[in-house]
Amino acid sequence: MIIVLSRDATQEQMDYIVDRVKKLGLTPHLSKGTERTIIGVIGPEDILRVTPLEAFPGVEKVLPVLAPYRLVSREFKSEDSIIELGKDIKIGTKKVVVMAGPCAVENLDLLREIASNIKKQGVTVLRGGAFKPRTSPYSFQGLGQEGLEYLKQVGDELGLVTVTEVMDPRDVELVARYADILQIGARNMQNFNLLREVGETQKPILLKRGMSSTIKEWLMSAEYIVSGGNFNVILCERGIRTFEEFTRNTLDISAVLAVKLLSHLPVIVDPSHAAGKWSLVPALSSSRAF
Amino acid sequence: MIIVLSRDATQEQMDYIVDRVKKLGLTPHLSKGTERTIIGVIGPEDILRVTPLEAFPGVEKVLPVLAPYRLVSREFKSEDSIIELGKDIKIGTKKVVVMAGPCAVENLDLLREIASNIKKQGVTVLRGGAFKPRTSPYSFQGLGQEGLEYLKQVGDELGLVTVTEVMDPRDVELVARYADILQIGARNMQNFNLLREVGETQKPILLKRGMSSTIKEWLMSAEYIVSGGNFNVILCERGIRTFEEFTRNTLDISAVLAVKLLSHLPVIVDPSHAAGKWSLVPALSSSRAF
Amino acid sequence: MIIVLSRDATQEQMDYIVDRVKKLGLTPHLSKGTERTIIGVIGPEDILRVTPLEAFPGVEKVLPVLAPYRLVSREFKSEDSIIELGKDIKIGTKKVVVMAGPCAVENLDLLREIASNIKKQGVTVLRGGAFKPRTSPYSFQGLGQEGLEYLKQVGDELGLVTVTEVMDPRDVELVARYADILQIGARNMQNFNLLREVGETQKPILLKRGMSSTIKEWLMSAEYIVSGGNFNVILCERGIRTFEEFTRNTLDISAVLAVKLLSHLPVIVDPSHAAGKWSLVPALSSSRAF
Amino acid sequence: MIIVLSRDATQEQMDYIVDRVKKLGLTPHLSKGTERTIIGVIGPEDILRVTPLEAFPGVEKVLPVLAPYRLVSREFKSEDSIIELGKDIKIGTKKVVVMAGPCAVENLDLLREIASNIKKQGVTVLRGGAFKPRTSPYSFQGLGQEGLEYLKQVGDELGLVTVTEVMDPRDVELVARYADILQIGARNMQNFNLLREVGETQKPILLKRGMSSTIKEWLMSAEYIVSGGNFNVILCERGIRTFEEFTRNTLDISAVLAVKLLSHLPVIVDPSHAAGKWSLVPALSSSRAF
Repeated sequence: MIIVLSRDATQEQMDYIVDRVKKLGLTPHLSKGTERTIIGVIGPEDILRVTPLEAFPGVEKVLPVLAPYRLVSREFKSEDSIIELGKDIKIGTKKVVVMAGPCAVENLDLLREIASNIKKQGVTVLRGGAFKPRTSPYSFQGLGQEGLEYLKQVGDELGLVTVTEVMDPRDVELVARYADILQIGARNMQNFNLLREVGETQKPILLKRGMSSTIKEWLMSAEYIVSGGNFNVILCERGIRTFEEFTRNTLDISAVLAVKLLSHLPVIVDPSHAAGKWSLVPALSSSRAF
Repeated sequence: MIIVLSRDATQEQMDYIVDRVKKLGLTPHLSKGTERTIIGVIGPEDILRVTPLEAFPGVEKVLPVLAPYRLVSREFKSEDSIIELGKDIKIGTKKVVVMAGPCAVENLDLLREIASNIKKQGVTVLRGGAFKPRTSPYSFQGLGQEGLEYLKQVGDELGLVTVTEVMDPRDVELVARYADILQIGARNMQNFNLLREVGETQKPILLKRGMSSTIKEWLMSAEYIVSGGNFNVILCERGIRTFEEFTRNTLDISAVLAVKLLSHLPVIVDPSHAAGKWSLVPALSSSRAF
Repeated sequence: MIIVLSRDATQEQMDYIVDRVKKLGLTPHLSKGTERTIIGVIGPEDILRVTPLEAFPGVEKVLPVLAPYRLVSREFKSEDSIIELGKDIKIGTKKVVVMAGPCAVENLDLLREIASNIKKQGVTVLRGGAFKPRTSPYSFQGLGQEGLEYLKQVGDELGLVTVTEVMDPRDVELVARYADILQIGARNMQNFNLLREVGETQKPILLKRGMSSTIKEWLMSAEYIVSGGNFNVILCERGIRTFEEFTRNTLDISAVLAVKLLSHLPVIVDPSHAAGKWSLVPALSSSRAF
Repeated sequence: MIIVLSRDATQEQMDYIVDRVKKLGLTPHLSKGTERTIIGVIGPEDILRVTPLEAFPGVEKVLPVLAPYRLVSREFKSEDSIIELGKDIKIGTKKVVVMAGPCAVENLDLLREIASNIKKQGVTVLRGGAFKPRTSPYSFQGLGQEGLEYLKQVGDELGLVTVTEVMDPRDVELVARYADILQIGARNMQNFNLLREVGETQKPILLKRGMSSTIKEWLMSAEYIVSGGNFNVILCERGIRTFEEFTRNTLDISAVLAVKLLSHLPVIVDPSHAAGKWSLVPALSSSRAF
């Protein structure tokens, strides 16, 4: 961590900061320049992260050097993590896995019809919402447990792996009983109690990126799950909120590359929710970049 | 709602859409132009909102005309809602109410010291976190129930109203037992199960704006609480996420005006979290605009 | 164009607006709903676009139906425009054209060395800046005419087509004398006098997207050039400014698809300036989507 | 400047970087940590700024310590700069100066009528566009020189100071002959040749913030003007582009405070263009913060 002192920092202020750093068991390195003095701090940065250094008199800014996540980082584990589902499906290899299905599970017949159609086209993971996060309290909120039952039944019948969203820490056990993969939606990416709860299961967790979350925050949310003991996290890029209005969200394709550099976790893309226009989905899905 | 057909929409597609609209009990008005045909739909727009019209062949775009929120709108209730706390504090009038306190409740003595200091400066609402939403799983997560007890004790001793965050639907009852106002944090603005849960209490709810939420989404989240029967909602503008890096968030002062135009609910401002720099807080707080 | 009246619009206000619309030679269609009256306007929307309707009493909002650009639209010309350079290079077909070269032309030898290296790797268009748009007045601003001469000389020697930026309407003639393609940089995308000036040449123009420009604004800037008589416009997606900090800009890959849907003009991608990290460029370049 | 080396940087790479820094006449300070080595560089940072250090093997990131602007900074000049216009108007003091007028100068009579009306309400600076930056090539582009003549005539008649936009370096001399203050519009904030050109006059320059420009970039554009010898720069906050759609732009009120901290230049606010809704202007103008 680098502490940049303000131009008019006093010797007393500087001594106080150096002293605080030392008391935390860290080693400060002073570099006095013509315009600014900077203090480089050597040692585990986490200790310092919780100290509100920027509020100290004489401090202009604080520049972190290390990433705040550990267990999900490439430095912790250099080889790619691969999530295996059943005997055939591996998420995180070069082989493309397609997940598809209706937005919400509406009834058994319709779900079965959709599922058998998409299965013919190579889909191996069936998605469908039983609990739906709706911006309006007046919209259909999903069938709940009944939807989970249909999803499991159709998955079993057709030999498809299933994924569905869980929105409430109280529902984690229920959803885990029925679905193969638990999805954390974009709006709940920083619902930390929910993250903690799914971190206590051993189910694969599909963690969608929040619509205005940085890559760093996204990895920190994955760290929540992993630090609870569940390493089976699949990251999902689904577009970020920008000023552009033609698409519902802006698919941040570079974020996929960034995750591959920074983390060992697998990352998938949701082109449908990103674009918000079905006509863009085929082209957005055809990249061979990763 | 306005449905704009694409230039090459067929008569058959047009008829199908008109038919669907009629079956929903609504009245379509066709305007055929030289370049486009548009269908204006008269009647309760909500019915149509859940139909994915933009996915229909022949449809170019759908333009909603009405706001999706009802109970929180000025049209539903034209006079300002005022939240009364104890005998003296009214939120939503011209009289400024100042809420202050430590980020987290750390121990009883420190909280008491801070609280009595700020009380002398005119603060009437004491805030302090017992459950803390932290981006890192390794940061201090708050004292939980112990923090709530300290908050209540100090509030009682000094005659201060208290506000604290609730992050989990399972904690609503607990937090409501100790605090006067329940805060929904920015990261939980679209945690709909939590909104529903606090909507079933009669406690005043301080609803922070999500860091990349539009004003419309913010009001929709308030609608969740109100539609559960709890009209005691206080909106809180706390800055939005933009490209600017000098401040932690960009305080959207126009949003305060927008809320006053669109809704009867009171709205407050959190200049501290918006700026992220204590030196900007006094100036950001001195506006007399509202 | 759709004019949505406010709930409390008077009959008098409504009549006034209808009257104004008619006087402009357009046909208003009224739809009176239970909550709102909307006026659909049929006829050339451009006439109405310049009238500040939203400032009229009784008007709540105005929703445009048609795109504001004409000559660059797919509706004006349905087949793809292809820009031919020399006998071999065609921009706008399935065949990938790679443009590369140094940020700035620094001297003849270095440029020649770079150019012959990249030529061996299949590059056919040489880029290099003679006039550099620098955020700092103290940075190297480019060699100017001398840089143009080197660029032309190396292009001629090696049989490479050249592209370089023009920043000033006064330099258009000069740059056009030396370079094969004129580049309008992101910061000048809405420098309308410059657009007009290059619209009067017949040179191919590489129009970079402004860093916070919508797709609509980008196409409007292309319309400026085309409306001056120069249809040789190549659009260039180079990333947009968002909250994400890992990459310098967020490459908006969906914008490429959007342009192909909305316009007949060719569109290219600049992965280097978007990412700001050389390590991401190969993967960002490997998409086969378009 | 701080250079953070990557975890796997070799001794050779480190030596090369240290050597380069020394050859530039700067002093490197190495701090070897358990996880990273960082190099603090002491001396004039500008020298290093133009070296693309992040592209060097072994470098993870580069963190600048100093601001890149000099002449406009508070450190260069600690007291507020005040721009005097005529005998009575001072921009940059506590006394509020109101600038108003039509978007575009349309004809002499209308301009005179507007000007005399607003003068009665205390306006002392008359604004009106003669050259208009229009997103559409088909919109009215302003009266040009004729508009400048009307503006000057009405200003003279009524004793009002005038301000109008200049969009083209070729027009600077012309506009400077007629108007008291030259405006650089948001879209031209990084039109560096235009900035340089107005930097060679001694006219007051009203520099609007670009719609997605950071505060740092805005100050750098002011630095362009000032470094040409013209210190008469008035900064103008006019809202930034964000995801919010209720207002045309998001007025960044904190940016006004930031400018006052970082620079000695005066800063004004354009609430009209920020809000895009006349009904919000009075409240946005009533802050007493600055």
